[in-house]
Amino acid sequence: MGKRMDVLTNQLEQDKLDWVALNPGPSLRYLTGLNFHLMERPVVVLVSSSGQVKLIMPELERAKAASLPFEAEVFLFSDDPAGWQALFARAMADISSRPLRVGVEPTRLRFLELSLLREALPNAEFVDGSAALAGLRMRKSADELRAMRHAALIAQNALINTLTTVKPGQTERQISAELIVQLYREGSEAELPFAPIVSTGPNTANPHASPTDRTLREGEILLIDWGAGFSGYFSDITRTFFCGEANEEMRQIASLVEKANEAARFGGGPGMPAGEVDRLAREVIADGGYGDFFTHRTGHGLGMEAHEQPYIYQANPLTLEPGMVFTIEPGIYLPGKYGVRIEDDVVVEDGGLRSLTDLPRQVMRLETFLEKARKG
Amino acid sequence: MGKRMDVLTNQLEQDKLDWVALNPGPSLRYLTGLNFHLMERPVVVLVSSSGQVKLIMPELERAKAASLPFEAEVFLFSDDPAGWQALFARAMADISSRPLRVGVEPTRLRFLELSLLREALPNAEFVDGSAALAGLRMRKSADELRAMRHAALIAQNALINTLTTVKPGQTERQISAELIVQLYREGSEAELPFAPIVSTGPNTANPHASPTDRTLREGEILLIDWGAGFSGYFSDITRTFFCGEANEEMRQIASLVEKANEAARFGGGPGMPAGEVDRLAREVIADGGYGDFFTHRTGHGLGMEAHEQPYIYQANPLTLEPGMVFTIEPGIYLPGKYGVRIEDDVVVEDGGLRSLTDLPRQVMRLETFLEKARKG
Repeated sequence: MGKRMDVLTNQLEQDKLDWVALNPGPSLRYLTGLNFHLMERPVVVLVSSSGQVKLIMPELERAKAASLPFEAEVFLFSDDPAGWQALFARAMADISSRPLRVGVEPTRLRFLELSLLREALPNAEFVDGSAALAGLRMRKSADELRAMRHAALIAQNALINTLTTVKPGQTERQISAELIVQLYREGSEAELPFAPIVSTGPNTANPHASPTDRTLREGEILLIDWGAGFSGYFSDITRTFFCGEANEEMRQIASLVEKANEAARFGGGPGMPAGEVDRLAREVIADGGYGDFFTHRTGHGLGMEAHEQPYIYQANPLTLEPGMVFTIEPGIYLPGKYGVRIEDDVVVEDGGLRSLTDLPRQVMRLETFLEKARKG
Repeated sequence: MGKRMDVLTNQLEQDKLDWVALNPGPSLRYLTGLNFHLMERPVVVLVSSSGQVKLIMPELERAKAASLPFEAEVFLFSDDPAGWQALFARAMADISSRPLRVGVEPTRLRFLELSLLREALPNAEFVDGSAALAGLRMRKSADELRAMRHAALIAQNALINTLTTVKPGQTERQISAELIVQLYREGSEAELPFAPIVSTGPNTANPHASPTDRTLREGEILLIDWGAGFSGYFSDITRTFFCGEANEEMRQIASLVEKANEAARFGGGPGMPAGEVDRLAREVIADGGYGDFFTHRTGHGLGMEAHEQPYIYQANPLTLEPGMVFTIEPGIYLPGKYGVRIEDDVVVEDGGLRSLTDLPRQVMRLETFLEKARKG
């Protein structure tokens, strides 16, 4: 933890930030080991570029402050919101008059904390600090990669166990419920990256479908997008299956998506802009005539969050570096008919991309997939 | 949905808000039926006091806009963040010059959305709109209460199934893993209200403990705080058990907490300030000499969120009304030794509070509890 704090304070100096204000979430956990729920209470940790730390938290969680791996001033608030602003003012009394630049996480810090901070630091400017904070977590260590591979294995085993029970006539919800049970049986942590997507037939044409009571039928496509949590890190995989015989168009889009996934996995590597990975996948699908039906970016970073930096969209100039982990998940969605997506989790290494996920990728019949997956 | 929208627009007029800006979460789901993940994309729905609706969402989720139960202007953004601000500006072009008061949810709206909104509405004032929004969801309908009772039953059955497998020598993590599996077997939705707390021995003295590898031993206290999700609504229950023989002090604090829970459950009712329910429970524990060891409020509202209004803390003047649902969860925590908490979910009715949870509340030996619980 101490070392991670040092990296942060250096980064703050580089980014000309005087302080960074974190509320509960992966960055706070990564830096401090502190795990708080993000709920109605305004838990905030402030870190200065010189390494000063202020921790504002509920009285009720006082015990957590005792085990901190660094020095911090701790300020405790009660359950009565009427006292919160005064406590924030007291916590920041020594710096309240200064014209500070305070970095925050735009997808994390809320109106609640921001309002309390603004009032307590009336001369401060609050700015997007995500460059400093995302940079901190983007390149994964060997330990982090081990946890992520483990999260991938848990998810893969859970899928195989689930597929052995899948039959036409079952609903999306039933299949999803079984998958969740199997994820926990295989050792996933309580917090999944997201509720699994299990979609069938025309529902597969919606990339963000939620499981419904629709039943799987012969001749349809089944799409499953799921992941597990292990040691604070997530996996995120998609596989698509034929239930029985596929028609010509299904086979055609499946083959294009397979090739797009391959083009990005084999073509990507360090030193390349993130957008280039998107281009590699997108080109295959566009050349095949389905460019308009690949409606989302090729992938997103993965780690302590299900979606984090680096995002793999065409205009992203961010240079890929060893240790970065992201998904590659091209798809083709034909509204009212069906869709196909194939998603892997890859890590950037010196020689190229290595996949942390290794279930068969080809879209095939359920039974064939199970046979192949079991052989490894 | 239409009726809920009407209630909101009336409320906005009363609270002198021109617009309310919602991002993904329970309020948005309650009002529109729209279910988005709260992640890196700035999904925002704006509703005006005259019923005008603007929906800003990703291109990728376009299908969701088709099934809206009300009229809305829809603005779609791509995966490239560089285009987001321009889209927000376009969406608000017709109102951008006006000095508007815009209400937001302080625990939901983030720096990300707020910055985009501020830039697009430079003359607007953004204020805490939680009174209007919480008011909307606080009084539950008969349908909502049925879902909550169902969520309670799922949780209760899952606990009974789990306890039949609990033995000294098991770790907190093992017990928690089994409980999660049982929650899903009994029909819980994928999203649990929170990861179950399973704590043993001295860990029970930490009200917000996370399960560890510590093993349960004879003569200790076991505390379980868990809940299920059903049809978008949560339950949240705590029961405390003796594993084998309890000592005198354990029995004493257990008895006080039982009485505090009863005092609040039987004493609370409509027309009373929320703070009075807290006082009823707190008084019992203070009179018993353990006031300093009841370190949190007596409860919190429950519904589509695990914690929502009304919060049950001493200074809260909010008047309880029929249909409001909250937890009653007094506890005594003796640091380094043990803790006891007993938590029920209650709904305010004309005649008093009715409990949605009905497992035996008395702290007793595991085996005795199982016998009683099975008899109903």
